[in-house]
This record gives sequence, C-alpha cells and structure tokens, in this order.
Amino acid sequence: MDDILDRFAQGELTREQARKALVSLGCAQVAVGRLDTGRLERTGQPEVVFCQGKTPDQVAIAMQGLYAHHGRALGTRADADQFAAVEALLPDCEYDPVSSVLRAGNTMETIDGKPAVAVISAGTADLPVAEEAARCAAFLGCRVERYHDCGVAGLHRLLDVRADLEQAGAVIAVAGMDGAMASVLGGLSAVPVVAVPTSVGYGAAFDGLAPLLSMLNACAPGVAVVNIDNGFGAAAFAARIVRGASRE
Amino acid sequence: MDDILDRFAQGELTREQARKALVSLGCAQVAVGRLDTGRLERTGQPEVVFCQGKTPDQVAIAMQGLYAHHGRALGTRADADQFAAVEALLPDCEYDPVSSVLRAGNTMETIDGKPAVAVISAGTADLPVAEEAARCAAFLGCRVERYHDCGVAGLHRLLDVRADLEQAGAVIAVAGMDGAMASVLGGLSAVPVVAVPTSVGYGAAFDGLAPLLSMLNACAPGVAVVNIDNGFGAAAFAARIVRGASRE
Amino acid sequence: MDDILDRFAQGELTREQARKALVSLGCAQVAVGRLDTGRLERTGQPEVVFCQGKTPDQVAIAMQGLYAHHGRALGTRADADQFAAVEALLPDCEYDPVSSVLRAGNTMETIDGKPAVAVISAGTADLPVAEEAARCAAFLGCRVERYHDCGVAGLHRLLDVRADLEQAGAVIAVAGMDGAMASVLGGLSAVPVVAVPTSVGYGAAFDGLAPLLSMLNACAPGVAVVNIDNGFGAAAFAARIVRGASRE
Amino acid sequence: MDDILDRFAQGELTREQARKALVSLGCAQVAVGRLDTGRLERTGQPEVVFCQGKTPDQVAIAMQGLYAHHGRALGTRADADQFAAVEALLPDCEYDPVSSVLRAGNTMETIDGKPAVAVISAGTADLPVAEEAARCAAFLGCRVERYHDCGVAGLHRLLDVRADLEQAGAVIAVAGMDGAMASVLGGLSAVPVVAVPTSVGYGAAFDGLAPLLSMLNACAPGVAVVNIDNGFGAAAFAARIVRGASRE
Amino acid sequence: MDDILDRFAQGELTREQARKALVSLGCAQVAVGRLDTGRLERTGQPEVVFCQGKTPDQVAIAMQGLYAHHGRALGTRADADQFAAVEALLPDCEYDPVSSVLRAGNTMETIDGKPAVAVISAGTADLPVAEEAARCAAFLGCRVERYHDCGVAGLHRLLDVRADLEQAGAVIAVAGMDGAMASVLGGLSAVPVVAVPTSVGYGAAFDGLAPLLSMLNACAPGVAVVNIDNGFGAAAFAARIVRGASRE
Amino acid sequence: MDDILDRFAQGELTREQARKALVSLGCAQVAVGRLDTGRLERTGQPEVVFCQGKTPDQVAIAMQGLYAHHGRALGTRADADQFAAVEALLPDCEYDPVSSVLRAGNTMETIDGKPAVAVISAGTADLPVAEEAARCAAFLGCRVERYHDCGVAGLHRLLDVRADLEQAGAVIAVAGMDGAMASVLGGLSAVPVVAVPTSVGYGAAFDGLAPLLSMLNACAPGVAVVNIDNGFGAAAFAARIVRGASRE
Amino acid sequence: MDDILDRFAQGELTREQARKALVSLGCAQVAVGRLDTGRLERTGQPEVVFCQGKTPDQVAIAMQGLYAHHGRALGTRADADQFAAVEALLPDCEYDPVSSVLRAGNTMETIDGKPAVAVISAGTADLPVAEEAARCAAFLGCRVERYHDCGVAGLHRLLDVRADLEQAGAVIAVAGMDGAMASVLGGLSAVPVVAVPTSVGYGAAFDGLAPLLSMLNACAPGVAVVNIDNGFGAAAFAARIVRGASRE
Amino acid sequence: MDDILDRFAQGELTREQARKALVSLGCAQVAVGRLDTGRLERTGQPEVVFCQGKTPDQVAIAMQGLYAHHGRALGTRADADQFAAVEALLPDCEYDPVSSVLRAGNTMETIDGKPAVAVISAGTADLPVAEEAARCAAFLGCRVERYHDCGVAGLHRLLDVRADLEQAGAVIAVAGMDGAMASVLGGLSAVPVVAVPTSVGYGAAFDGLAPLLSMLNACAPGVAVVNIDNGFGAAAFAARIVRGASRE
Repeated sequence: MDDILDRFAQGELTREQARKALVSLGCAQVAVGRLDTGRLERTGQPEVVFCQGKTPDQVAIAMQGLYAHHGRALGTRADADQFAAVEALLPDCEYDPVSSVLRAGNTMETIDGKPAVAVISAGTADLPVAEEAARCAAFLGCRVERYHDCGVAGLHRLLDVRADLEQAGAVIAVAGMDGAMASVLGGLSAVPVVAVPTSVGYGAAFDGLAPLLSMLNACAPGVAVVNIDNGFGAAAFAARIVRGASRE
Repeated sequence: MDDILDRFAQGELTREQARKALVSLGCAQVAVGRLDTGRLERTGQPEVVFCQGKTPDQVAIAMQGLYAHHGRALGTRADADQFAAVEALLPDCEYDPVSSVLRAGNTMETIDGKPAVAVISAGTADLPVAEEAARCAAFLGCRVERYHDCGVAGLHRLLDVRADLEQAGAVIAVAGMDGAMASVLGGLSAVPVVAVPTSVGYGAAFDGLAPLLSMLNACAPGVAVVNIDNGFGAAAFAARIVRGASRE
Repeated sequence: MDDILDRFAQGELTREQARKALVSLGCAQVAVGRLDTGRLERTGQPEVVFCQGKTPDQVAIAMQGLYAHHGRALGTRADADQFAAVEALLPDCEYDPVSSVLRAGNTMETIDGKPAVAVISAGTADLPVAEEAARCAAFLGCRVERYHDCGVAGLHRLLDVRADLEQAGAVIAVAGMDGAMASVLGGLSAVPVVAVPTSVGYGAAFDGLAPLLSMLNACAPGVAVVNIDNGFGAAAFAARIVRGASRE
Repeated sequence: MDDILDRFAQGELTREQARKALVSLGCAQVAVGRLDTGRLERTGQPEVVFCQGKTPDQVAIAMQGLYAHHGRALGTRADADQFAAVEALLPDCEYDPVSSVLRAGNTMETIDGKPAVAVISAGTADLPVAEEAARCAAFLGCRVERYHDCGVAGLHRLLDVRADLEQAGAVIAVAGMDGAMASVLGGLSAVPVVAVPTSVGYGAAFDGLAPLLSMLNACAPGVAVVNIDNGFGAAAFAARIVRGASRE
Repeated sequence: MDDILDRFAQGELTREQARKALVSLGCAQVAVGRLDTGRLERTGQPEVVFCQGKTPDQVAIAMQGLYAHHGRALGTRADADQFAAVEALLPDCEYDPVSSVLRAGNTMETIDGKPAVAVISAGTADLPVAEEAARCAAFLGCRVERYHDCGVAGLHRLLDVRADLEQAGAVIAVAGMDGAMASVLGGLSAVPVVAVPTSVGYGAAFDGLAPLLSMLNACAPGVAVVNIDNGFGAAAFAARIVRGASRE
Repeated sequence: MDDILDRFAQGELTREQARKALVSLGCAQVAVGRLDTGRLERTGQPEVVFCQGKTPDQVAIAMQGLYAHHGRALGTRADADQFAAVEALLPDCEYDPVSSVLRAGNTMETIDGKPAVAVISAGTADLPVAEEAARCAAFLGCRVERYHDCGVAGLHRLLDVRADLEQAGAVIAVAGMDGAMASVLGGLSAVPVVAVPTSVGYGAAFDGLAPLLSMLNACAPGVAVVNIDNGFGAAAFAARIVRGASRE
Repeated sequence: MDDILDRFAQGELTREQARKALVSLGCAQVAVGRLDTGRLERTGQPEVVFCQGKTPDQVAIAMQGLYAHHGRALGTRADADQFAAVEALLPDCEYDPVSSVLRAGNTMETIDGKPAVAVISAGTADLPVAEEAARCAAFLGCRVERYHDCGVAGLHRLLDVRADLEQAGAVIAVAGMDGAMASVLGGLSAVPVVAVPTSVGYGAAFDGLAPLLSMLNACAPGVAVVNIDNGFGAAAFAARIVRGASRE
Repeated sequence: MDDILDRFAQGELTREQARKALVSLGCAQVAVGRLDTGRLERTGQPEVVFCQGKTPDQVAIAMQGLYAHHGRALGTRADADQFAAVEALLPDCEYDPVSSVLRAGNTMETIDGKPAVAVISAGTADLPVAEEAARCAAFLGCRVERYHDCGVAGLHRLLDVRADLEQAGAVIAVAGMDGAMASVLGGLSAVPVVAVPTSVGYGAAFDGLAPLLSMLNACAPGVAVVNIDNGFGAAAFAARIVRGASRE
C-alpha cells in the first residue's frame, strides 16, 4: 500500500489508478464501500457518510467520492482524526466539534417560498444532537431556526417561542430524560413535530429509552419519532416535508 | 341517573341541565372528560375519541359533545357496544368493523391542490391498522390512496406501485414482523415515510417491538415512526404534512 | 367445613371457635393470612386488603378481622363477588365499581389544619386509578380534591388548576402514555408531586412502562413515583406527607 | 471565533470579554443555556446545574449566572475540571469528591420548627449517592441526619436507628442490589420513605434496575421512588415535604 | 382409538399391547412422551409430570406409566379435567386445588435423622406456590414445615419464626413484589435459603421479574433462586440438600 | 355481498366474476391479499398461508387461490373454523389439530437421493411446533423423520438417536425452557442444526425468550435459529438445505 | 489524616481513638462502613468485603477490621491497588489475580466427614468466576475440587467427570453463553447443582442474561441459580449445604 | 512461581520448559483449557479458539495445541498482542486486523463439486463481521464469494448481485440497523440465507437487538439467524450446509 501511495505521489499513477490499485488490494485492507450516487435522483438527497466506526481513510475516500459526484459531501458523527483525513483530500472541508458534523462544499440551494425547519431542544446537553439536526437540515437546503434550552421544567421558555414555531414547516424537537417536550408541542401547534429522543440522562433513562417511549406515546397527535440521538434522520425527514411545502 | 334521563326525556330538564346533573353525580359514576374543543383552532385538527377502555356511555357522551361543537366526531378502537351507544345519540354515525373506526358527520373538507396520503401495508393482517390510518386521514380532509399486501417478501409488489407513491404528499407504511418495508420505501422515493409498526407476528416479534426497532433503525433516511398499531397517529401526522404541502 | 359452618349457624360454636376450627383445617383450604393489626400503631395507617388474586372468602375474613380490630377496613382491586362475600359479614360495606375500592366503616378522622391531597389525572381512562387514590386518601383521613382530564395535550386545562394545586399538601398526578403531566407539574409548583403511571395506552406504552420511565426521568425536580396503577400506594404516601404538614 | 481568540491571546480582550464575545456568537459554538431564574419563586428551590456531559466552561458560566441571581449555586455530578473552571470565577466554591457536588455560596436558611431529613444508606458503595442527597438537602435548607451502612443483611443496624428515623420529616433510603431496605423501612415507621435505587451491584442488578423494581413493588406502603442514583431528586422531593411540615 | 380401548377392556389386548397400539396411532393423536423411568436411579427423584399444556389423556397416560414403574406419581400445575382423567385410571389419586398438585400413591419414605424443609411465604397470594413447594417436598420424602404470611411489611412475623427456621435443613422462601424476604432471611440464619419469586403483584412487578431480580441480588449471602412460581423446582432442590444432610 | 354470492350460486356470475366483484367491494370488507404466485419460481417453494389473525373467509379465498395456481396449498396456525371455511371450497383439504396445519392437495414430490429432515423435540409440550415443522417439511417435498421427547434432562434419549440424526440432511431441534438440546446436538454431529425455540415454559422463560437466547448463544457451532414457535420457518429453511444436498 | 496515623503509630492515640478520629473526618473522606462482626455467629460465615467500587483505603480498613475480629478476612473483586493497600496493613495477605480474590489469614477449619464442593466450569473464559467460587468455598472451610473446561460442546468431558461429581456435597456449575451445562448436570446426578451464569459471550448473551434465563429454566430439577458472575454467592450457598451434610 | 521465573531469567529453564512448569502449577495461575481434539471427527470441523477475554499466553497455547493435532488452527476476535504471542510459537501464523481472525497453517481442502458460500453485507461498518465469516468459511474448506455494501437503502445494489447469489450453496447475510437485507434476500432466491445481525448502529439498535429481532421475524421464509456479530457461527453453519451439498 505504501508502494502505491509512493508511486502516486511521484506521479507514476493517476489518482484514479491509485484508488483502483488500493481497492484491488481487497476490502479487508481498504474497504471502500459502493457509493450510492443515484440516491440524490431517487430521493432528492445525496448519500451522507455515517463516520462512526469507520477509519479516517474510509471516511476520506467516501467523502471524496461523493464530493466528486455531487460537488458537496456531508459526514456525521465524525471525530478530529477523520476530519484531518478528509481535510487532506478536500481542503474546503469544515468541521463542527459540537455536533461532530463534517461538511465539504456548500449546502444545497435553499428554495424560495419554502417554510423553515425549527430545531428546538430541551437542555444544554441536548445541544450536540440539536446541532446535528440543524446543520444537516441546512446542508439539505432548508432554512433553519434554532431554539435551545426550552425544556418543560421551565414551561414559559416553550410558551415564549410558540408563535415562532407555528411559522415553521416542520419542528424538530430534541429532548432526553422524560421527552415531555414533544407532547406539549404536539398539543400547541399545527406543525408536524419530528421528535428526537436523546441519550441525555442516566439510570432509568436507559440511554434514551425513556424519552423514546415517551415520545412514541405522546398524548397529543402530530408527533413522529426517529432513532435516539438521530439528529441527521430528523433533518432528512423534515427536509422531505419542507421540500413539498409552501410558505403560508 | 335513570331519573335524570327520564326527566330529560320528558322535557323537564334541558339537555344542558341534564348533562350537568349527570356530571354532578360525580366522576366516579359518569366520568365525562373535559372536551378539548379548542384543539381544532390550535392544531388544525379536532379532538378524536380513543374509545378503548371507556364505557359505551363515556364514548357516547364524548362523541356527542364533539359533534355538537364541530359538526363531526371521530372515534378509534371502538367496539360494537360503543357504536350502539353512540348511534342512539347520533343516528348518522357509521362504524367500520375492520378498522374499529366510528365516525359521525362528514369528513373535513379536502383542500384543492394538496397531494394525497398514500397508505401502503405489508400483509392482510396489517389491514385493520392500515384502514384506521386511511379512514382517519380521510376524516382529517386528506385524499387517501390504498396499496395493500405489498410486503417485501414479494418485492415486485412494492416496486410496482413505486411510481404512484412518488406522487403522494406523505406515505404511511404499515408493517409488522420485520418492518422492512419502511427501509425499502425510504430508499426508493423522496416522499416522507411515516412508518407504523404493527403487532402482527408472534414470538420474537414481541407484540410489535421487532418492527418498531427495525423502523427506528431504517438504514434509508426519510422515515419517522409512530407507536405500534397507531394508524390514527400516522394519519394525524400525515395530515399535518399535507396541509402545508402543495401538489407538485 | 360445612360441618363447622352448620354448627356455628346452630350456635354450637362461637364465631371465634368457628374461625379457629376453619383455620385448623389447614391453609390449603381456607388460607387466612396473619393480620398485621400492629401496623396502625407502627405506621399510622391500618393494613389494607389487596383483594386481587384472593378468593371471596379470603377477602371477607381478612376484612372482618381488620374491622373487628380497627372499626374500619379498606380493600382495593376488589370485584363484585368479593364485595358480596364481605357485605354478607359486614353490612355497612360499600363498593365503588369505578375504582374497585371496598370500604367498611367510616374513614379515619380528618385532622384540622392539615392541607388537602389533590388528585389530578390526565384522561378519562386514568379515572379508575385516580379514584383509587382519592378514596384511599380519604379513608386515611385526608381531605381530597379531584381534578380530572387535565392531560398536557390541552395544556390550558393544567394551567387552569395550577393555583388550586398550590394550596395542597401533596399532589397525586395520575397519567399513562407519555406521563408528561408529572414533569410539567413539577416545574410549576412547590408541592411534592407523587406520580402514578398508569397502564393506559397500547403498543410501546408496554403496559405502563413508558410513563413509568418518563416520570422517573422527570426533568423538573420534586417528583417521586409509585408502581404502575398503584393509586393506593400514592395515597398512603401522600397521607404520610400530609400527616406531618400544617396548612400554610 | 479565531479572531476573538487571537485578540484574547494578544491581550486586547480580557478573559471575561472574550468569553462574552464567544457567547454572543450563538449557542452552537459555546452553548450557554437559558437559566431558569424564576424557578425559585415558582417552586421554592433554585435551578441546580447537572454538570455531567457539560464542558467546564458551560458549567462555570451556568454556576456564575445562578450565583449572580440567587447568591448561591449548586452543581451535581461535577468532576475536578469543572470545579477548577467554576472556582476560577467563584472563589468561594467548594467541591466534595465523594458525592461530586459543587457548591458556591451558603446553603439556604434552615427554617425553625421543621423536622430533619434523614439519609440512610445500605452499604459503603452507596455512599456517593447518599452524600449527594445529604448535601443537596442541606443546600435546600434542610437539617440533615446521616445513617450509613444499614443494609438488611445485618438487620440489627437498621433496627438500631429506627427510633431516630421516626423523628424525621422524611427518610431518604439509598440502596442498590435488592433494594430491600425501602420495604423494611416502610413497614416500621410512619415517615414518608423516599427511595433511591443505586447502580451498585453487578450482573442481574442491571445497573440499578433490580433495586428500582424492588422499591417500586415495596410490599409496605409509604414508599415512593426516584430515578436510579438520583440523590439530588430525592433531596429536592424531601425538601418539599419538610418545607410544608412542622416538627411534632 | 375407542376400538383399541374396547379390545383392551375385553382382554383381547394386554395393557402393553394396548399402549403400543395407541402410540402407533401416531404422536399427533396421542402423544405419549418417553417416560424417563431411570431418573429415580440417576438423581434420587422420580420424574414428575408438568401438566400445564398437556391434554387430560396425555397427563393420565404419563401418570399411569410412572405409577406402574415407581408405585407413585406426582403431577404439578394440573387442573380439574386432568385430575378427572387421571382418577379414572388411578383411583387413589388426590388433587389439591390450591396448589394444583396431583398425587397418586404415597409420598416417598421420610428418612430418619434428616432435618425438615421449611416453607415460608410472604402473603396470602403466594400460597399456591408455597403449597406446591410443600407438597412436592413431602412427596420427595421430606418432613415439611409451613410458615405463611410472614412478609417483611410486618417484620415481627418473620422474626417470630426465626428460631424455628434455624432448625431446618433448607428454607424455601416464597415471595412476590419486592422479594425482600429472601435477603432478610439470608442475613438472619445459617440455613441455605432457596428463594422462589412469584408472579404476585402488578405493574412494575412485571409478572415476577421484580422479585426475581431482587432475590438474585440478595445483599445477604446464602440465597439461591429458582424460576418464577416454581415451587416444584425449589422442593426438588431442597430435597437434594436434605437428602445429604443430617439433623444437627 | 350476499347478493354477489347468490348470483354466483345461481350461475349468473362466474367464479372469477364473483371474486372480482367481492374484491371490488373494497378491502375493508373482504380483504383478499395479493397472492405471490411467483414465489415458487423464485424460491422453489410456494407461498404458504399464515392463518392466525385472518377471518375464515380470508383464509379460504387465499387457500383456494394458491390451490388453483399450484394444485396444492398449505396453511399454518389454522383453527377449526378456518378449516371448515376452506373445506367448503376445497373438499380434499386435511387438518391436523395438533399442529394446526391445513393442507389441500398432495405434498410436493420427494426428490430421490436427497437426505431426510430429522425433527427432534424435547418434551410433549413441544409437539405442536415439532409437528408443524414436520408437516411443512413434508409438504415441501422432504422425507421427514420424527424423534420426540428427547430433552437433555434424560440425556440417554438424545444419545440413543444420535446415529440416526447423523444420516439426515438437516436436523430441526425443537425445545423450550433452557433450549439446551440445540447446543448438545451441535457438538455431537456434523449436520446443520436448525433450532426452534418454543414458548413452552413459564416465569423466566418469558414466552420463549429463554430458549431463544440460549440457542443463539449455543456453545457448539453448527446451530442457526428461527423465530419462537416457528416450525414452518424451520421447515422452509431445512427444505432449502436438503434441496441442494445429496445423500452421502 | 497523615497526622492521625502518625500519632497512632507513635502511640499517642489508641487504635480506637485513631479510628474514631479518622471517621470523624467525615464520611466523605474516609467512609468506613459499620462492620457486621456478628454475622459469623448468626450465619456461620463472616462478612466478606466486596471490593469493587471501594477505594483502596476503604478496602484496607474493612479488611483490617474483620481480621482483627475474626483472625481472617476475605475480599472479592479486588484489584492490585486495593491489594497493595491491604498488604500494607496486613502483611500475610495474598492476592489471586485470576479470581481477584484477596485473603488475609488462614481459611476456616475444614470439618471432618463433610463432603467436598465441586466446582465445574464450561470454558477458559469462565475461569475467573470459577476460581472465585473455589477460593471462597475454601475460605469458608470447604474441601474444593475443580473441573475446568467441561462445556457441553464436547459432551464427553462432562460425562468423564460425572462419577466424581456424584461424591460431592454440592456442585457449583459455572457457564456463560447457553448455560446448558446446568441442565445436563441436573439430569445426571443427585447432588444439588448451584448454577452460576457468567457474562462470558457477546451479542445476544446480553452480559449473562442468556445463561441466567437458561439456568432458571433448566429442564432438569435440582438446579438453583445465583447472580451473574457471582462465584462468591455460589460458594457461600454451597458452604451452607455442606455444613449441614455428612459424607455418605 | 517466582522460583520458576527466576530460574528462567537465569537461563536454567528454556522458555518452553518455564511455560510447561507454570502450567503444571494448575489452572488458577495459567489456565490452559482442555482442547476438544475429537471435534473434527464428530462434527467435520476442528475446534476454533475464541480469543476475546483470554490472555495472549492462553491463546498461544491453545493455538499451538490445535495446530499440533490438526496441522492448522484458527482463532477469532484476536488482537495484536495475542497474534504476537501465537506468532512466537507458530511462525506461519497470519492475522487479519479487519476481521481479527488469526490463522496458522493452511485452510482445509476445498472439495470439488461443492457450491460456494456467498457473503453479502450491508454497509462498510459491517465489514469486520463479514470478513470473519468469509475467512472462517474459507478455513473450513469452502469457496467464498464476497459482496459488500449491498444494503437495501440502495436496492439496486442487491438486485444487481441476485443472479450470482443464486449459484451459491448458502448465503451469509450480514447487516446491522434494520436488518432488512435478510428478508429481501429470502424472498428473492431459493438458497438458504444465514443471517448475521451486527451491532452496527446506535440508540434503538440496542447493540444489535434491532436487526436480530428483525431477522428472526423475516417475512420471507428461508432465513435462519445466528448470534449478533457471530461471523464465525454463520460460517460454521454454512460450511455444514455446503459440505452436504452438490453444485447443481
């Protein structure tokens, strides 16, 4: 492998030849997945790299491949080493350590006349997930509004922003512990509430099981739920809603 | 209580007086909840009666109260006895035994220019939940399209309807067992997929836990989940999406 | 056994002799437990009969024994057959079919200057548990106030009664599904909130697991939790609080 | 942001100015939550900072904000780094490494005539949670008594302190493994028992699930439960009880 | 099948021929299992029929087969129909409806000099399981002593019998809900405590999971646990202990 | 619907016209699924009707449709009413009440030179699942051998049949409770062991969870697992194995 | 604290004064539990120190206290730092890194005429738990025999030692994964089998849940279960059995 | 033991002699398991070393023992330290860091005329498990084909390789998250699908529980499941299938 890289550095191999050579070493050494470059056409959203559990090289090659095809690429749950590997290939890559989101290239175009995605979170510890949702939604071409620290323990904070939320095309509600924010929101507004339970909490929170069950059983209609800590999933779902919506 | 009803029947008590008298017997005997008649204004959707676990009288009084206010009323998870009690008060009430949905009065107006809600289900045993979703969505003013028996065991059935689904404003995907339909749909289209796990199955399906977890972990973006067997919740959520959407 | 009963009926055996004779037949036939008549002195509250899973005879003998000792007796989760068996021995027994509570004799004395116990419930289906709490608290000498149908799906209903709750010595909050009412109450008032999750709901409510976990993870302080559907436990706990409290 | 840091490094900005400038960049970069300073008035207890999962800076800014408003501030689940960050801003801050509690300023006033909060724990490993409860109750203005190492494996230790506990306004019972201490206490005294299951144990203790379930099913009345390891929650609840109680 | 039975009744077929003919009808119709008649020799205890889920015929044939071999037979979790079918073949069969135990023939010989098995239970509802344990232990040749209604909610009841328990060779402790009795017993005596969690309780008892976990985590040594409601298993285990023990 | 049936009975409608008319009444009334008649070609096995949860009419129409296409049809988890409805349409239908299997037409051809499928079960209560496996495997063209009542509590029973099992192409091992049979078999032979956990047992068997987990963790290699009580699934899987195998 | 220790070393403080002074430093600093020195008299076995989660100082002081009283002390789940702290106070302390058992002083006397405790384990990874059981049993005065690597994947290994096991007074069976060894042993011998599930395995072993459930559902009688990885508990229980037993 | 080490340090003992001497001190110090060298004859597959949780020495000795007997040895879940220890004894040992598989000696002979084992995986993160399956199958004498990155989010990737899979003797399907790949494969082909759920994912994937349940509930027949992340188990099972199969 060093050999291939040396030859590529010395110009004996083109980038394409080098990559092929690397891949032909077998998946056990390099493990470049098959990129699903057709996903943008099928679903309106390009493939996004889930970085957790991948090596920096795997992340970098995947980001590069998507960037080459779409002119932009997004990675979630990235760490600093993965960022370094990507930045070496794609210098315009940016990394947000709070949300662990990695972005190369611009966000998708924001379409005029579409309502915003509102991201509302309960406590400071929910911020990484909320920011993942916000940054992914922005990447997917949504206008994003943020409302942090609005948990129901201080109900006035939620009631204060109620009118603002009502203008959104979709609300992403991020909360751990009791997950009660989703139910309260569902009963206060007509906007679809995409609930994201977080693993914030301890003990009988069981790593997010408590807010997950609470949100699935929201006593107010108008709430649907994504996986625990899945800010990206909420963003992708909300972007699908907003893409079909018009500002009222 | 018979006394109050007799006096009401003989005109000695107005309906209002009769109801108050009934209520004043104490909640332990009659248990009429406080109707949330302001919900329509707040959320765009009237309160719906969850009939399971209520007595026929409780259901009937709640349906009557909502009907009086909104000119229509919907009940879910109703049985034949509850239907009989409601029909006695509201003769234009209809009952669908497959979905256990009870409806008095017309559905809400369908707004022009809004895309349809597509309800797609995996197997025959998922039909009651799918029909609950379909009928509730219709009540809430959505155009509804039904695609039954499209489970991934015979993948062609799903691929056959793919183009139709793409025109919808939201897809409600109803499946038990492995819940795999939601993931496949999420990867094939750009429409938001509202997934409803059902309690269909046995053994390690654990009354719907298997498809619930599977859908929450859908490997394709664009999927959000409601409670097990919660056809109504999926409909209310989809109606919120469609209300803000325009047909493209 | 018939022999003993006949001889008792004919006066050959005193009631005491008859009971001893019955008991000496062996526990497999009669199974009268050892009554814990010292509990009143130790804990300020007499033993209460948990009727579920006992035969009508077992319930009747236990109620009679406690009544003989304390001049009053309470049974929870009783059914009509058990009531009939008790009523045959204790004619002043009353039965409430909503809460399944059985009471013989008067409630304990209400002590002057103690604040009330407020029982607040989320929906109509929570009523049986709420009434169990209310009736047990009353039996234990508390003044009781009831606030039904105050779930957070219509938040105004909860905010409406906020000032009233603040006067109570303890609030018993009864809710199923998302259990969000406990969190909201905890953040709005200074009164201890005793939360009772109920088995109301379906699917991922998992027979009360969802509100149980939600309430244990209440994001607002001031909430403690009893077992699912345990109205009696909440009442006994609240009565301990109020017994030590003075109205402010 | 680099700009701010450069100017701070060159002395153009004081640390305080730099931090403020960073905060004004918005929550996504620095994440200062909205403090709920009205909580003291609403609930009789000020907001307390849950430090786990927050950065030292986030903790320090939150503690400072609360201290500025209330003249005191409490943090739970803090580590040494967080303490260092707080101490830099609030020199009178104290840190207890056993309970991980951080306190700046004095405890609230102890009101005359109120009974004490008794904290009783089962084993040495339960000490951190018991101390969290004790220190938080003291901060909230309670007199606190401690009884450590009283698990039921040596029942005499519990019986020895029984008379002392009876004088308390509330007992906080801290135990892991079988959680049996709560049941035994509930049957021995008339004081409300606030049970705290701990994650002490291994295997089928399932990180506190075993004592949690055991305490929720206490066969003696008079027991209510808070989250696993939640010493603070027990203290806040007990303080609400004692605040309304008078010494008898 | 009637044909075979008629021919057997008329002596045309021996019992052996009849049984073989019945079996050869195929397992779907008769389903006589292979009796493990060597178990007595291997383990000191004969096979016992677990009746639940078997047809009356299956139970009767199995009991008859064991009776023919050993001169006695025991069945657990039997109902009245199964009893009737057995009684038709084995007229000296007895049935105890409290424990659902079926016994044909005498109990095994009690060996001199062996200590007793003490069965202690917490509440009236635990009686069926306790009696199953008691009757099975008696069948296996143990002297049995019973102590009912000794739950820790009234601790004196347990302390009262402590000296008696100390004389036993093994204590079978039967309790539901919090299962705390096992821990308390383990710390009070030197006798092995075989704990049987029961499904008595509701809500977060989760059908016996709460006492099962509590007993597995008993903070006092000397406790081992069998399956929920498994009175028979506790008896078989205790009988193995006592068989090797001598009265001290 | 009666109208359509009458007209069909009087010959005014062909069977095909009648069915179409019935279907056009809408799925809520009749609910005939889309039959996957191509499954035989794709997978070598025709679709099989899972009868549980379907109405007798739904079962009958599905069986008839498959029979019309393939000349045979199989239904699992059928009850007597469903059998009656099928028999009315397909007189050569047979029903086995032990396994609840319904079969119309002959089994598929047994291919020469293929090894048998051996079905081995642990106890009498496992028989229904074992028979479902055996009958489904026979329907799918396998030679089937049955070994009942071979649980490891009497290990000799398993060792006795070891040599026979070794000749099979696949072993289906059916056991509840501890599920230990699968592990023992995996270590004794070279044949693939398809393990079927059953819901036989009680308490901590948790409806089959115990043997499911045990079998998934079999310490001997060569074991794979299907769903709890899924005799059909094991048969379909074993038939795929045997179809590709040659007798050795 | 050093000051107190120095003064004690120089004789200015008695041991008692020193300990009191140490304790008066406050539980947060030293946290010496109340030793249960009466346990030996009550239960025949001295208290044993569970080291996990305690500081080296806490372990050392507890070991020293027990050693002072009994002339011996045992600690389980100790690490090297705790050993070092104990060794500094008690130079004759020994540490076994495989089982993490710490022992100071001799084992208890082995009583003549008592049968041995046999410890049998399934695989190499179960060795730490098996050794904890063996060493604890030896400390409690039992003769101990070890049989390692006897899992049912190679059944002959278990059958080979069967005759030896039959001579024991109790068998401690240590196994993870499927836990099948307990069931097989229960059916082969008349000796009580104390089963210890271990956390050996991965995935659906769920940290020992799989063998725990499997062992609780052992299809052979004569098996009781202790907590996952609880070698000490099994030893304490087996020692109670053997203490009452005579060699046959 | 110190003695042995000293003599080894001084050259009086070779490393080999030292290790043997250490082993002879007994299992508590070194813990060499009993190798099951008869397994190859019984099951057609030699014992394989599960390295996780073993010391490098334990792994090395076990690998050496098996190598000495069979001329080859395989280890799974090995790390670099274990590899180093093995390599010191067996220089022809190879280690694959992706799958953590260790192999000494050649793979078993591939038998002519047997179909291949196809390993198909969903995403890059599933690669380690897929490679474990592939390398173990190869070791056991199977021809292996690999198809990576074929998850259903991009369904075309799966459909593209469908024809290739149909030629295999068994398909090993490796997927985490929703596990939907197994169901889709089961409905598309006639080859037995051995499904391996992986722990890839987060939140409600619950470390592989979600795909495990999903695969156990596959709506398409022809799927059986092994433990989470158990690539080796799938390979051993598939090798048993292929060993009995002939290429068609």
